[in-house]
Amino acid sequence: MPRWKKVAIVGVGLIGGSIGLALRKRKLAKEVVGVGRRAASLRAAEQAGAVTATTLDLASGVQNAEFVVICTPVSGIVEQVREAALHCAAGAIITDAGSTKEHIVAALPSKFSRDVAFIGSHPMAGGEKSGPENASADLFVGRRVIVTPKRGGAPKKLKELVAFWLSLGAETIKMSPAAHDAAVAAISQTPHLIVAALAAATSLQHISLASTGFQDTTRIAAGDADLWRQILADNRDHVLKSLDKFETVLASFRQSLENDDHQKLKRLLETGKKHRDAVGD
Amino acid sequence: MPRWKKVAIVGVGLIGGSIGLALRKRKLAKEVVGVGRRAASLRAAEQAGAVTATTLDLASGVQNAEFVVICTPVSGIVEQVREAALHCAAGAIITDAGSTKEHIVAALPSKFSRDVAFIGSHPMAGGEKSGPENASADLFVGRRVIVTPKRGGAPKKLKELVAFWLSLGAETIKMSPAAHDAAVAAISQTPHLIVAALAAATSLQHISLASTGFQDTTRIAAGDADLWRQILADNRDHVLKSLDKFETVLASFRQSLENDDHQKLKRLLETGKKHRDAVGD
Repeated sequence: MPRWKKVAIVGVGLIGGSIGLALRKRKLAKEVVGVGRRAASLRAAEQAGAVTATTLDLASGVQNAEFVVICTPVSGIVEQVREAALHCAAGAIITDAGSTKEHIVAALPSKFSRDVAFIGSHPMAGGEKSGPENASADLFVGRRVIVTPKRGGAPKKLKELVAFWLSLGAETIKMSPAAHDAAVAAISQTPHLIVAALAAATSLQHISLASTGFQDTTRIAAGDADLWRQILADNRDHVLKSLDKFETVLASFRQSLENDDHQKLKRLLETGKKHRDAVGD
Repeated sequence: MPRWKKVAIVGVGLIGGSIGLALRKRKLAKEVVGVGRRAASLRAAEQAGAVTATTLDLASGVQNAEFVVICTPVSGIVEQVREAALHCAAGAIITDAGSTKEHIVAALPSKFSRDVAFIGSHPMAGGEKSGPENASADLFVGRRVIVTPKRGGAPKKLKELVAFWLSLGAETIKMSPAAHDAAVAAISQTPHLIVAALAAATSLQHISLASTGFQDTTRIAAGDADLWRQILADNRDHVLKSLDKFETVLASFRQSLENDDHQKLKRLLETGKKHRDAVGD
């Protein structure tokens, strides 16, 4: 018997589509409704088998849903959670997949009326590819999902949210929204900004000579520009703090090179290598 | 019948070992002698089938060799080319695989006595892995090798050098040493320095949360620190120029974020994406 009678997914791109595929492949939900703003995306998600029904109307899409996942760009999430909370099943859990959490969690209560709860999530999956056509039922297998409950939220609801992500094959990590945002600024958003600047600063003539190293280094800069503008703007303060730290370290590298201080340059490169080696292949 | 009776490879790491494997797999050389400073590396190269004989002595290793490839770190190349020129076969071609060219080419004549010629090469292959144990007979297939002949060098020798790289499956591009060094500063060395600084600036606690994006972005920072110190120092002026350009563009990104100038931030991200997309997957 499926664990959920009805799950609604608002936004059926890479993440939303993959959640739908994972739920259906694992027979976790009887009904998976995709809510979107464009009929074409909804059709693509339906054809991919990610959803069992689709609608352009959020209110009717989440009706009777016990579980709602908002997978839209960060700028619209707060409003959509509020609307979903009005129309979903009593006792439902609403979560999101936004890559920043502090603004979203601060703007929303953890408890709505009718025992509806909101707890933020951030699945650390995806990449530069987007859209339901790149979705996969196994996108979350072995990947981490950070959950960011608000103080005073119901532990039972958190347990249910964790169970949701575990059932898709993910591991979960609990963090405060602020700690989450500092972490993703450091490992995702600031790196994005830096390599986007690197790619933009490299002439197309030189780029024509580039090979695997440059390809790997700048891969994330291929992400959708408007989506990343939103993410960067939404996590501005943490990104600027990470950027300060990067610029300070980069200035040390520059100085050691300018001063022909080979000992220092080597030490800095060794620190970079040590930190890189800690990520694994 | 093999094209060359004897090829000598000085330095049998990833590049030297791969040249040996490629020559032997394609039956291009009757004898491939590996010259090195450490008996263990030479044994590893011999066991891998990259060379038919080994020696710790450069002079005897290059004796009678019609083709000599110096695959050692950039700081020792000039001296080794000079010594090889004294002892190799008359009419031989000496090339190298160093990733900077201006200093090396400037320090050496293109013609030595006994019709021995030196022409610089830079195979754009390899990566963060090093050592003969990672060598591959197909490392150069479809990869580019930049050749940097000096003005006044013999066209016949250049033709022979080009034929050498083509026979290993590579394509060649002819550039001036200065244009080469500016290009590799832009697409290889400055990116290395930047992502080494990024990795060094990211706390190990945050790194423990990192996933594929950060892995790809910082992959090249896993390269050997001492080797990269040499490469960066050797191409210092071009690297500092590329770094200036990067810092100017990064400052625009920072400013657009600080000023909440979403239009400008989006435009900058779009330029980054356009340049990244030009590299291919």
